Amino acid sequence: MEKITSLENAQVKKWNKLHQKKERDATGLFLVEGEHLIEEALKYDAVELILYEGECKFKDVPIQEVTEAILNKLSSNPSGTKYIGICHLPKKEVKQYHRILLLDGIQDPGNLGTLIRTAVSFSYDAIYCSKDTCDVLNEKVIRSTQGALFQIPIHYEDLKERILKLKEEGVYCVGTSLENATSMQEIPSQEKMAFLLGNEGNGVSKELLKETDINLRIEMNGFESLNVAVAGGIILYQYRKL
Amino acid sequence: MEKITSLENAQVKKWNKLHQKKERDATGLFLVEGEHLIEEALKYDAVELILYEGECKFKDVPIQEVTEAILNKLSSNPSGTKYIGICHLPKKEVKQYHRILLLDGIQDPGNLGTLIRTAVSFSYDAIYCSKDTCDVLNEKVIRSTQGALFQIPIHYEDLKERILKLKEEGVYCVGTSLENATSMQEIPSQEKMAFLLGNEGNGVSKELLKETDINLRIEMNGFESLNVAVAGGIILYQYRKL
Repeated sequence: MEKITSLENAQVKKWNKLHQKKERDATGLFLVEGEHLIEEALKYDAVELILYEGECKFKDVPIQEVTEAILNKLSSNPSGTKYIGICHLPKKEVKQYHRILLLDGIQDPGNLGTLIRTAVSFSYDAIYCSKDTCDVLNEKVIRSTQGALFQIPIHYEDLKERILKLKEEGVYCVGTSLENATSMQEIPSQEKMAFLLGNEGNGVSKELLKETDINLRIEMNGFESLNVAVAGGIILYQYRKL
Repeated sequence: MEKITSLENAQVKKWNKLHQKKERDATGLFLVEGEHLIEEALKYDAVELILYEGECKFKDVPIQEVTEAILNKLSSNPSGTKYIGICHLPKKEVKQYHRILLLDGIQDPGNLGTLIRTAVSFSYDAIYCSKDTCDVLNEKVIRSTQGALFQIPIHYEDLKERILKLKEEGVYCVGTSLENATSMQEIPSQEKMAFLLGNEGNGVSKELLKETDINLRIEMNGFESLNVAVAGGIILYQYRKL
């Protein structure tokens, strides 16, 4: 294809709109920057097109040469990037319900991305997010996942309904709370488990804590304050599939 | 004291310089924003002066009224703040060496702050950082600690020398690495332990991994990629003082 050189090009304008959630929701597409993330996306057939300037190291995938100015315009990195991938999320069915992560209103993109990365590292099967959780296709989330988002099904839906469904399917649903909760060491591992983490400021909503089978508390003896991605890491490791 | 109204006031200019590491190092002072962090600092006698506009909720501590424009100028929050504290770190001796955290070249302020918060939550005794670790008085670090930085001694020094000293004192020094390492479950808890975490991209430097008593690996069965603050959370919880 011919090199695109104009910032006013209709395609460029369309790609640039992918910085907006509305456009991502409408098209199912999003931008991914940098070689590492594009390589991860390629492993899972998630790349539609790669934009580059000069030489392109990627083969066997549609590529489109553009100018550096266009890459800079599309990049969310102030120092620019050599490659931008136009990607979609691979269709992934939830194959089993042995280990599930439930996220209630996580707001910080770094926390969401880190939790996704941790869930994949410990082989969790799926993630369900409340509708007010930060968008997984936000560029900061994508960066924090280090590419893990291509490897796990992630759904946005009503968590109360999801918890009720999981319980019907025999999944033991574990909330997290600092109050009225059982210490983690007293909660044995079970075949099918789901873990519910909450908003950075307010924790899991009370309404959801009522629906869980049990609520868990990480034992602390000092400050009683953990970042949600750290708390998630401790719990996801503790109950990882062996 | 009289209200300060000019952005050109010499004191205001001096406070504003505290955004620079050089000035913080020279004076031992730093800025803290928002009620929650100032309340934490007050608990540990770490506040020299509180700047406010209008009503001040803080009593029994030196206060200085300024204009909103001055608060905005000094604030690193785009939407401003109601209070700014001029603080120092409390002098804290390392009282015991039962649980120590060693940080080699952590770059991300959020990761450093989160690790400090986690160390305090699990009652660790001290943190030693390599000289190329991000400055603990960086405002993003302070925010991520949620105030935990007032509660634990934090030193910057040559980590190789520190590890050699700790070993002399009978502290079992545990490095972290993905390669040539022992899985965490095989490393029993000991009375005195130190844990060494490394840079986000490169991990712990090879030179330091040679000096430790053992190197630890968190068991993963998937993606083999954890954020350093999450890895730290899992390890610090696992070996917490009971």
